[in-house]
Amino acid sequence: MSRISKSFCRADGRRLDQLRPVSFTADVAPSATGSVLVSMGNTRVICAASIEEDVPAWMKRQKVSGGWVTAEYSLLPYSTEGRTRREVSAGKLSGRTQEIQRLIGRAMRAAIDLDALGSRTIWIDCDVLQADGGTRTASITGAWVAVRRALDRLKREGRISSIPLSASIAAVSVGIVDGRPVLDLNYEEDAAASVDMNVVMTGKGTFVEVQGTAEDAPFSRPELNRMLDLAAGGIKKLLRAQQAALK
Amino acid sequence: MSRISKSFCRADGRRLDQLRPVSFTADVAPSATGSVLVSMGNTRVICAASIEEDVPAWMKRQKVSGGWVTAEYSLLPYSTEGRTRREVSAGKLSGRTQEIQRLIGRAMRAAIDLDALGSRTIWIDCDVLQADGGTRTASITGAWVAVRRALDRLKREGRISSIPLSASIAAVSVGIVDGRPVLDLNYEEDAAASVDMNVVMTGKGTFVEVQGTAEDAPFSRPELNRMLDLAAGGIKKLLRAQQAALK
Amino acid sequence: MSRISKSFCRADGRRLDQLRPVSFTADVAPSATGSVLVSMGNTRVICAASIEEDVPAWMKRQKVSGGWVTAEYSLLPYSTEGRTRREVSAGKLSGRTQEIQRLIGRAMRAAIDLDALGSRTIWIDCDVLQADGGTRTASITGAWVAVRRALDRLKREGRISSIPLSASIAAVSVGIVDGRPVLDLNYEEDAAASVDMNVVMTGKGTFVEVQGTAEDAPFSRPELNRMLDLAAGGIKKLLRAQQAALK
Amino acid sequence: MSRISKSFCRADGRRLDQLRPVSFTADVAPSATGSVLVSMGNTRVICAASIEEDVPAWMKRQKVSGGWVTAEYSLLPYSTEGRTRREVSAGKLSGRTQEIQRLIGRAMRAAIDLDALGSRTIWIDCDVLQADGGTRTASITGAWVAVRRALDRLKREGRISSIPLSASIAAVSVGIVDGRPVLDLNYEEDAAASVDMNVVMTGKGTFVEVQGTAEDAPFSRPELNRMLDLAAGGIKKLLRAQQAALK
Amino acid sequence: MSRISKSFCRADGRRLDQLRPVSFTADVAPSATGSVLVSMGNTRVICAASIEEDVPAWMKRQKVSGGWVTAEYSLLPYSTEGRTRREVSAGKLSGRTQEIQRLIGRAMRAAIDLDALGSRTIWIDCDVLQADGGTRTASITGAWVAVRRALDRLKREGRISSIPLSASIAAVSVGIVDGRPVLDLNYEEDAAASVDMNVVMTGKGTFVEVQGTAEDAPFSRPELNRMLDLAAGGIKKLLRAQQAALK
Amino acid sequence: MSRISKSFCRADGRRLDQLRPVSFTADVAPSATGSVLVSMGNTRVICAASIEEDVPAWMKRQKVSGGWVTAEYSLLPYSTEGRTRREVSAGKLSGRTQEIQRLIGRAMRAAIDLDALGSRTIWIDCDVLQADGGTRTASITGAWVAVRRALDRLKREGRISSIPLSASIAAVSVGIVDGRPVLDLNYEEDAAASVDMNVVMTGKGTFVEVQGTAEDAPFSRPELNRMLDLAAGGIKKLLRAQQAALK
Repeated sequence: MSRISKSFCRADGRRLDQLRPVSFTADVAPSATGSVLVSMGNTRVICAASIEEDVPAWMKRQKVSGGWVTAEYSLLPYSTEGRTRREVSAGKLSGRTQEIQRLIGRAMRAAIDLDALGSRTIWIDCDVLQADGGTRTASITGAWVAVRRALDRLKREGRISSIPLSASIAAVSVGIVDGRPVLDLNYEEDAAASVDMNVVMTGKGTFVEVQGTAEDAPFSRPELNRMLDLAAGGIKKLLRAQQAALK
Repeated sequence: MSRISKSFCRADGRRLDQLRPVSFTADVAPSATGSVLVSMGNTRVICAASIEEDVPAWMKRQKVSGGWVTAEYSLLPYSTEGRTRREVSAGKLSGRTQEIQRLIGRAMRAAIDLDALGSRTIWIDCDVLQADGGTRTASITGAWVAVRRALDRLKREGRISSIPLSASIAAVSVGIVDGRPVLDLNYEEDAAASVDMNVVMTGKGTFVEVQGTAEDAPFSRPELNRMLDLAAGGIKKLLRAQQAALK
Repeated sequence: MSRISKSFCRADGRRLDQLRPVSFTADVAPSATGSVLVSMGNTRVICAASIEEDVPAWMKRQKVSGGWVTAEYSLLPYSTEGRTRREVSAGKLSGRTQEIQRLIGRAMRAAIDLDALGSRTIWIDCDVLQADGGTRTASITGAWVAVRRALDRLKREGRISSIPLSASIAAVSVGIVDGRPVLDLNYEEDAAASVDMNVVMTGKGTFVEVQGTAEDAPFSRPELNRMLDLAAGGIKKLLRAQQAALK
Repeated sequence: MSRISKSFCRADGRRLDQLRPVSFTADVAPSATGSVLVSMGNTRVICAASIEEDVPAWMKRQKVSGGWVTAEYSLLPYSTEGRTRREVSAGKLSGRTQEIQRLIGRAMRAAIDLDALGSRTIWIDCDVLQADGGTRTASITGAWVAVRRALDRLKREGRISSIPLSASIAAVSVGIVDGRPVLDLNYEEDAAASVDMNVVMTGKGTFVEVQGTAEDAPFSRPELNRMLDLAAGGIKKLLRAQQAALK
Repeated sequence: MSRISKSFCRADGRRLDQLRPVSFTADVAPSATGSVLVSMGNTRVICAASIEEDVPAWMKRQKVSGGWVTAEYSLLPYSTEGRTRREVSAGKLSGRTQEIQRLIGRAMRAAIDLDALGSRTIWIDCDVLQADGGTRTASITGAWVAVRRALDRLKREGRISSIPLSASIAAVSVGIVDGRPVLDLNYEEDAAASVDMNVVMTGKGTFVEVQGTAEDAPFSRPELNRMLDLAAGGIKKLLRAQQAALK
Repeated sequence: MSRISKSFCRADGRRLDQLRPVSFTADVAPSATGSVLVSMGNTRVICAASIEEDVPAWMKRQKVSGGWVTAEYSLLPYSTEGRTRREVSAGKLSGRTQEIQRLIGRAMRAAIDLDALGSRTIWIDCDVLQADGGTRTASITGAWVAVRRALDRLKREGRISSIPLSASIAAVSVGIVDGRPVLDLNYEEDAAASVDMNVVMTGKGTFVEVQGTAEDAPFSRPELNRMLDLAAGGIKKLLRAQQAALK
């Protein structure tokens, strides 16, 4: 990226490769095994991990050993400008919600050693309190902290002897707005983006998920490469923020 | 109540006629028109009021003038010890949830002057972040503050000229535990109660709802009267706490 | 109540504290274990009790001993002026129906000694054939007779040695119409009432349920007391009518 | 049929070509426009016709003139030995119920002159109070009486000038039990039948529906003919009973 | 039928008693145990039989021995002029689809010796690729071939020692169009028919199902007889075509 | 890729960068506006495009001009070894199906000029007849041909003056199997893959979708690059095959 584009100010004054302010507030939901409120700018998500000493019926039937991780996601109705209808009113989850739940679940399963977890289920819940773009990636970044806190608590309580995490995980969105690749889009940028990409990476710099979609205009290989560079840089910072929050 | 029973300590050290600590945190959900996090002891509920400049289709069809108020309630899955399944998974609301939603809605409609509201809908959302008994009454007490804040905002923005509230409203639970009428039951007391009663009252000391249920043993008229006394005393304090929070 | 208000005639000519004519027709549904058609004025409800020699799966799983009682309620589509849509068309029960089912079930469980019942389920069905106000309270009053008849039959057939009933139960509605507390509202009065209250009591004069709702204007403590007096008087007569019908 | 088979006694003492006792009780549901309780032996069905001064939305959209007739059917849960679960619990109608509703609706549309009916909908409801075989054919026979009573009332009230009925309609079941064609099967016979057939005919002796199903063993053309003869004879008697009931 | 009516040409040039061209294409769905694409004129249906080495849970619970046969049917959305909505969009099967599935299932169960099948389930799927009238009868005729191919394969693989078929089965529609009984109606004729009848017969000339419906005008006994004659003639030809296809 | 890995034989004898045989059979569903059966090895999908002269209600309400494209996908139950249950039985689409439908829809919208399409909806249906890996990418590749054929027909019929396609589109899967990036995975490879990626590209070599998921082990940037190379090569061949099929 040239010096010029770096100095470019976005509508909210950020550089193209700049994250929004990130913070984690622990124990927002004390009845969960672990919980955190993650903020990325105005996007705020309640992330909770509840550990159940049981596994799904299908694992027992199929005699699959180890544990399980499953994730649920919702937009709380008052998280958006203009209230969003609860999906229970329609009697079923939207395609969008299901896609996000599956993404969060896969990302978390990539971080957790299911064999070492033992016959337990980790339920991950991500409820968006305020939505300003990047709710699914904030959910993943926050969920990892909630899971880590839940596992730390299990260890403190002597229920597990070591933390069954195989990787640290964080996620960020990137995209192309006004022809320029940018990091961590807010709602306004997201609505205007011609390309929208979500990237999930580990602490070792490897990929767990890469999902890029041309909303408006197809994108070239160099554009893809630039977006991946931005994502890698952003995720490195998010991983550091997670570690700081856990101390 | 005699001096002896007043000095009786409940499991959490409270007197029989003592509320749990109450607090209100404003603007917990900034995208809502008005919002508050209400805490009554460990029970914590996100209450949001979203004002939509439209009325339901049935009002237009039936040419009913004025506005509308509707309420939705959920236990967030991590609000309980032992995660509670989301109702969207079952594809429909439980009877308990519907009963609570209807109660909150009726209570709020008793407080709001629908004619003065004009062609608007107030959506009230109550999502329980932590459940330790009395979630439906805390929801009503918090929802009234959220509505008030939402209407204040409308007025500040010049969208209404006066606040269309006809009454202030608060609610509390009472019950009979170990043979003794008590105020504001926590979860443990609620589970042990032989009678469970929810009372909604106005700032003028009149009743909006009285719902008493014998869970275990029928109750006498004097017991009913004692519970209503306790409720009236508790609600008076809650109404003061609401006013303090709005300043 | 003063002599003047007692002599006041309602639209149907009744005194304020007067029930509509009550009757019970036995065995309206011969395939049920016990059944009765209850009439309170023009409100007519088929009440059936079916006894199954089994308990719900959750009781077996949780190793809960004793029996179970569950209730279902419906407005038959032709019970109202202007046909009411079947709820199966919408694929789910309305909130109103669920609320009523839960009320009937709780009331009946208050009357039945579940331990003495043994590993059996009593299914109570209340289907309204004609709806003219007070269908939920008529359902409870009729259901108790249907249950009693079903249990009598079990005893005659030698399947139980004593009748597992701990109380007799009846219910009535009261309300405030045109500023006056009245007993046993018909549909027209119900629609005009500013307060609507349902009361369920035992043969010993104790309360099982008290549900009072201000539809229009909050009510005072003296009004509440007057409504409870009316309810107690009406229920005493209903309990006598039940006993007469069982002979 | 030879003299021998005519004298053959079925389990309930009937001849092979003998109907069960038929009766009609008018006005069982006074809020319906017309209603009747039809009994064929122990099979008892509440049949109601409710006339609405409107037509379905699709008729308006497609600018179809005239009226509409639609039918709904249910087994009340206590109509069977061993309670039958309500279909609303499953959230949808069973295939059997849908099949029966469609059959009743087609049969009634064959009787009613939809053009002469005008922009009205006739809702036909058939709720089985006691089920002992032949509930769908009893429903049709009873529904015709309910419709006729409803239309008579419309005429009396001056809302129509003539009765828009093009035919009288009745229905009966026939089948092969123990190798012998029989008329009007009760539940026990129905369960044992190798062939089950439902026939709907007009007052002029023509067919509206013929539905024959080999449950166990295919049937020959002579057997089909014999069953049609039995049905024609039975329906002639039912049509006379309908006329008698209407007087 | 007189010589004149025989020589009568229908809109597509066929005689009144003439089938449309019939053909069977084997193995259209290689993952099924047996499959065939059946064409009757422009009506084309994918018929597949999948054999599962298990029986439904209810058979195990009720300790019913032998096997089971079940059928599912769908109109593929692009099978009709003007796309037909998938039923999964509505969340449930239409009454029409359920009726057809039940008909196909009963017809197939009449052909298969469930005891000889052993503890197996045959799933029959009929998906209409092109709909031009008579899709349910084509489905039955095709399904029988698919089942036969599936059972032949089981025998070749040594999983069964003999073919558990008790009968060959084929089906055809007949009806009355412009006052004349005709065989094998296409869509255009079906839409114009005053009577619509589906007939399922065995290779021995006996009936499995007869379903005749007056869409517009009731039909007489001679008309019924003539339709049955046409059906018997058509089915004889279809049975021969099935045999030819299996060689 | 070195000469050695190129000569490596996969289980089915293909090179790492080799597609399975591709073919297109036109007009498999003549009632659709355009249709094709696409085969990639044993994966076979019916792709149909139905053009409706109308747009969704929400477009009219929101006064959005131009046309719309929507896609539906299903696994026909007999497309898999071991029958797959129809989703209508569960009453709703699985998360997997919804994800695929959304992917196909987005890909097609990237190819079609919605403004030039005019007030029309293109319904795309992809029903899998045989599933051997890569059904979603085969669906996209086939759907583009079906859409092209549908639009050609509209032009021939004079309903549009030019073909409103802005790009040609094809898709392929790539992945990492046994540590080696491979092109166009069959079911067996897919089940064993540690990384699974679907790529949709235009005729100009730009990306419409990139969806890479670590099923088992995270992947590095060089692995990602190698997979993108393989995809680009495969898609180039698929685009040529599409053009050949259209001639």
